[in-house]
Amino acid sequence: MPNPTAAMLVIGDEILSGRTRDANMHYLAQEFTKHGVDLREVRVVSDDRPAIVAALNALRKGFDVVVTSGGIGPTHDDITADCVAEAFGVHIDVRDDARALLAAHYERQGVEFNAARQRMARIPDGATLIDNPVSIAPGFTMENVHVMAGVPAVFQAMVASILPHLTGGAPLLSQSLRIMRGEGEIAEPLAALAQRYPDLSMGSYPFQRDGVYGANVVIRGSDGGRVERAMAELAGLFPA
Amino acid sequence: MPNPTAAMLVIGDEILSGRTRDANMHYLAQEFTKHGVDLREVRVVSDDRPAIVAALNALRKGFDVVVTSGGIGPTHDDITADCVAEAFGVHIDVRDDARALLAAHYERQGVEFNAARQRMARIPDGATLIDNPVSIAPGFTMENVHVMAGVPAVFQAMVASILPHLTGGAPLLSQSLRIMRGEGEIAEPLAALAQRYPDLSMGSYPFQRDGVYGANVVIRGSDGGRVERAMAELAGLFPA
Repeated sequence: MPNPTAAMLVIGDEILSGRTRDANMHYLAQEFTKHGVDLREVRVVSDDRPAIVAALNALRKGFDVVVTSGGIGPTHDDITADCVAEAFGVHIDVRDDARALLAAHYERQGVEFNAARQRMARIPDGATLIDNPVSIAPGFTMENVHVMAGVPAVFQAMVASILPHLTGGAPLLSQSLRIMRGEGEIAEPLAALAQRYPDLSMGSYPFQRDGVYGANVVIRGSDGGRVERAMAELAGLFPA
Repeated sequence: MPNPTAAMLVIGDEILSGRTRDANMHYLAQEFTKHGVDLREVRVVSDDRPAIVAALNALRKGFDVVVTSGGIGPTHDDITADCVAEAFGVHIDVRDDARALLAAHYERQGVEFNAARQRMARIPDGATLIDNPVSIAPGFTMENVHVMAGVPAVFQAMVASILPHLTGGAPLLSQSLRIMRGEGEIAEPLAALAQRYPDLSMGSYPFQRDGVYGANVVIRGSDGGRVERAMAELAGLFPA
């Protein structure tokens, strides 16, 4: 079977203005090469509805797989989900499954789930959600188009979520744990744990909020029991 | 007058395979923003003739200005110039003006001007050359399409060459000097010189060949007499 062909669509004025240097293209190129997906084209377009819809339609018809990056946050210029719905001619609204994920997340955090944050639960009809173990707000897959966040740590976690579907490998299960310590404290115990579970992949995605350091540690593997056991060990290492 | 709109076409398998991380897109985005050119879209395609021609035709019709990066070197997979000729429906061959520039350059270097190197003198009919003060092999402008090298130092020098044409500024004149010293030795005298000529821009493009360090120093300005005087001073600072 020949390798699947792929294209990427990067959405964001901040890349085209030079304010931000895109990191996701290089990351995706390396991951796809490693896993036998043939990245053939990348387009970068601005936060402009007709430009996004036209690029989506050209790429989804021309390639087996399309990955998008950017434009699915809470602000008014995050229009990627609406553009995907338009490109596929389907309805879009806040969807219960995505809303439930986000509502639970913000409740745990003690943060108001306001109208702006509810925008992140807008999912086109017929799409399936892409797991976001880092910051919860999901991506989604609509036919051959995989819609992901632009923030590199989230983008990378979502790429890990979809890769098994693209390459015919066993789907990966993931669990994540929010650890309120700096990565300097997490690194050594995590490395030792990873060595005892060579069949699992463990990633750490650091954050800083109100001067407090923490990290979301994500454990992935195709064997759910193993993921569960490693996660229990991890939680034991870092009691809340 | 509204800002001119622009698109960029990056050509190269090495970007799409993740072997190389593209640097030119971010550089161009910053330079265009600084100079009031509105970069609206970037495409990255592989070294594939139909893909390059299709992208060229879409972008040159959709935007005021198109910049390409990559695929104008001496090897068989450097096909950008031929693709531009095909997109515009014009003839292409080794052109005397480009060949003369390269022949003189290789003669100075004592390097054979072989068939592979002569490929770099293939220029479509009707194009004008873009100055390459770093490594001589020229880019070219065909109507609204500016064809440039992928090597970042050369790409950056070529961007400086075309910017005044895009923004209606006075065209810049340039002279370059090849200095066979490490940049550590060049930096201080060059900074002092630049301070005495605040109206000129001075850039240093280092290289290393057979274990010997050197740099091409490029001086640019709109006043030819000033460029000439600064260049004479520079040559006095670093006798061969």
